[in-house]
Amino acid sequence: MDLRVTTKIQKEYFRKTRRSRDLYERSLSCFPGGISHNIRHFEPYPFYTKSAKGKLLQDVDGNDFTDYWMGHWALLIGHSHPVVASAVRNQASHGTLFGTANKLSLDLAYAIKEGMPRAELIRYSSTGSEATMYAVRLARARTGRRVVAKIVGGWHGYNTNLLQSVNYPFELDEGLGLIEDEEQFVESIPFNDLERSLKVLNTIRDDLACIIVEPVLGGAGCITPERDYLHGLQEFAKSNDALFILDEIVTGFRLSFKGAADEYKLEPDLFTLGKIVGGGLPIGVLCGDKDIMSLCNPVGREKGEIVCYIGGGTFAANPLTMTAGLATLQYLKQNKAVIYPKVNKIGLRIREGLESVFSDAHIDVDITGVGSLFMTHFLNQDIRKISSALDAGLSDKGLLRKYHLALIAKHNIFFLPEKMGAISSVHTMKDAELLIDATQQIVQSHLLSQGA
Amino acid sequence: MDLRVTTKIQKEYFRKTRRSRDLYERSLSCFPGGISHNIRHFEPYPFYTKSAKGKLLQDVDGNDFTDYWMGHWALLIGHSHPVVASAVRNQASHGTLFGTANKLSLDLAYAIKEGMPRAELIRYSSTGSEATMYAVRLARARTGRRVVAKIVGGWHGYNTNLLQSVNYPFELDEGLGLIEDEEQFVESIPFNDLERSLKVLNTIRDDLACIIVEPVLGGAGCITPERDYLHGLQEFAKSNDALFILDEIVTGFRLSFKGAADEYKLEPDLFTLGKIVGGGLPIGVLCGDKDIMSLCNPVGREKGEIVCYIGGGTFAANPLTMTAGLATLQYLKQNKAVIYPKVNKIGLRIREGLESVFSDAHIDVDITGVGSLFMTHFLNQDIRKISSALDAGLSDKGLLRKYHLALIAKHNIFFLPEKMGAISSVHTMKDAELLIDATQQIVQSHLLSQGA
Repeated sequence: MDLRVTTKIQKEYFRKTRRSRDLYERSLSCFPGGISHNIRHFEPYPFYTKSAKGKLLQDVDGNDFTDYWMGHWALLIGHSHPVVASAVRNQASHGTLFGTANKLSLDLAYAIKEGMPRAELIRYSSTGSEATMYAVRLARARTGRRVVAKIVGGWHGYNTNLLQSVNYPFELDEGLGLIEDEEQFVESIPFNDLERSLKVLNTIRDDLACIIVEPVLGGAGCITPERDYLHGLQEFAKSNDALFILDEIVTGFRLSFKGAADEYKLEPDLFTLGKIVGGGLPIGVLCGDKDIMSLCNPVGREKGEIVCYIGGGTFAANPLTMTAGLATLQYLKQNKAVIYPKVNKIGLRIREGLESVFSDAHIDVDITGVGSLFMTHFLNQDIRKISSALDAGLSDKGLLRKYHLALIAKHNIFFLPEKMGAISSVHTMKDAELLIDATQQIVQSHLLSQGA
Repeated sequence: MDLRVTTKIQKEYFRKTRRSRDLYERSLSCFPGGISHNIRHFEPYPFYTKSAKGKLLQDVDGNDFTDYWMGHWALLIGHSHPVVASAVRNQASHGTLFGTANKLSLDLAYAIKEGMPRAELIRYSSTGSEATMYAVRLARARTGRRVVAKIVGGWHGYNTNLLQSVNYPFELDEGLGLIEDEEQFVESIPFNDLERSLKVLNTIRDDLACIIVEPVLGGAGCITPERDYLHGLQEFAKSNDALFILDEIVTGFRLSFKGAADEYKLEPDLFTLGKIVGGGLPIGVLCGDKDIMSLCNPVGREKGEIVCYIGGGTFAANPLTMTAGLATLQYLKQNKAVIYPKVNKIGLRIREGLESVFSDAHIDVDITGVGSLFMTHFLNQDIRKISSALDAGLSDKGLLRKYHLALIAKHNIFFLPEKMGAISSVHTMKDAELLIDATQQIVQSHLLSQGA
């Protein structure tokens, strides 16, 4: 493992994160690559968080970072929000894992239904990866068909059913350990290119079980849908007796109290939630049409009748996650008139401000995003505008890593390098200005120029 | 949904769980079958837990149940143990989801390695289902082969790769929504029948990626391995260049501070943990040989080099789970000389006591189990001894449900109906005597006879 720090920015990062470097060296003898999640590694080594409160991450060296990663974009009301912390503290003495039915899971279901009434029936799992895996299974059960269409670069977790065309350049083998027979029933379509998407879909229409899509591509680079794209997919699915599945794990309760289906006027048959609705604790949720969801109901079946087996899992609907999620949704509901306009306004200011800073310096960027989500893409001769994961893959990721590390090292502003940023309700317009100023300083100090 | 209570025991259950019945009726409009986990439903309807402390579950009607389900057998030191509750309470204000590297994940890794030194490298996920899914993927990556051998009735979660031959009578289609192409690379072998198992394995040896096995069948009915069975499988795997994977999600840190690999002197290439090591919070862990585990290391790869992508996930290594797991393993380490002999002694007394009660009443049972795990199987003309999932499937499940519901309704003793029992460190020998006495009363009152 090469832990040498070579660039000027890396040296500055090293000076302030010495304890993290020691911990990372120890981690290498415990975890493959020293990490527990592929994307949490960044060059030269990740810092180690000691405490997180509000918008701040404090590392083991005592640095405070303003956090735009926000727990994989899950923490819309900030780290350890008092209402969540209090709910968790209280529940800790009354059971974290009943393993039985509990009223909290019912209360959370009502809260979800209030924001997203298309959640006619709900099933909890413990991760988003599980929820999307079960969505695919349910779609196959409902339609009796096999093929799943997903977006090139679409990210639905590491489950076997959807680990396809996730990593740029997408057409390569998606990784060791997946067998061809698992891969042959996943077809990938290009985001925001309805004509080409429909062309692909038409070739598989007879065996098409579902189309699954994130309304805003998250992991692939914060890419918003162009007019009519999602509607085109939905229409194709419905007119071909396939299911339209919206993966709202990132967007649910973020774009508004209702999520992307409402924002873009979509009517998914099934949709998945996660992140925000768990209040910072592990959760995945599969929701949707009651006839489809009922295919997994094991109760009262005739002997020999086959159901669609979906989780569940030991930790599903555990009271600790339920109470944290419930506290979060209740808080969002009470304050939605303030929170959503606020985070969206900050998002807009950041997108405009960054655009202007880079434009003034003649650095070509596309700042993508919507509402409280945003991302900087550095353009080059190959790519002039970002509207799909392929576009994002062609952008200058090396420059993006340098920019993000400079923000960390010189300005104590944290984006997980290469990943989009998310604003929480505890961020302020002043934070936006600080980010814009920091970016301007980085640009002016030529830290982004070659060799720096 | 038929919520009528028909038997005498059901009527007694209904009288004490009226509020639960109301909640269950409301749950039917939120969840398929009114539940979030298939097995948590039982006839006529499940009670709703309000609080859990130590060995007790308190329901919404104010009943206190002595719990032998113990959160899917995860809570070896009881519900809301003070050391765990305190760790969770403290962490709640310092971040539940950093989304970054953290020292707690390293400390938990050291604690796991101390008990199970074969965990050369570790990767956290958030559920056991994820851990076993990734184990299979890693085995296929390592061997370049496709076939996974699992035990008939073996339970490794609801993931697509291992949802085969899980439900009696096993040879049926395992459920809607799984495609044949996913199923064709899973072969099932009968537990404790080495000769037949090897016969099956021999037919697939050239394409065999791994054999995955729970050392003690959990979900299938608490069935212990007969002499040489697991060794026979291990030897076959090793001599045919396939991986031997031990699923220790139930047994890890339960049979002893070391788990089943140590107890049965096995040397798995990979093994999975969950339940106990999360301290009652969501966790899955994949561990094992460092060369194999390193196949998932994404750091420092050459461009174009392919890795085995395994989770991770948003909630992997989250500080709340890490601190709860760490508090649990530290407590177990400090008290292992007391805890393991104690729970094992209570287990032995229960197995012997129940055996004797049923035997005196001329009711044929096989009380299976080891250490702190145990289960009652009612025998009949079809089956005289339980040594595989098929045997357990042939036993009288109707009688078992009746027995378990009678314990709940008349004696406030809770087993998840049809499931094995687990003893925690806060159970006492007096609890064992109460369970044995209650069983005797149930037998003597003829509640188990037909029509009761």
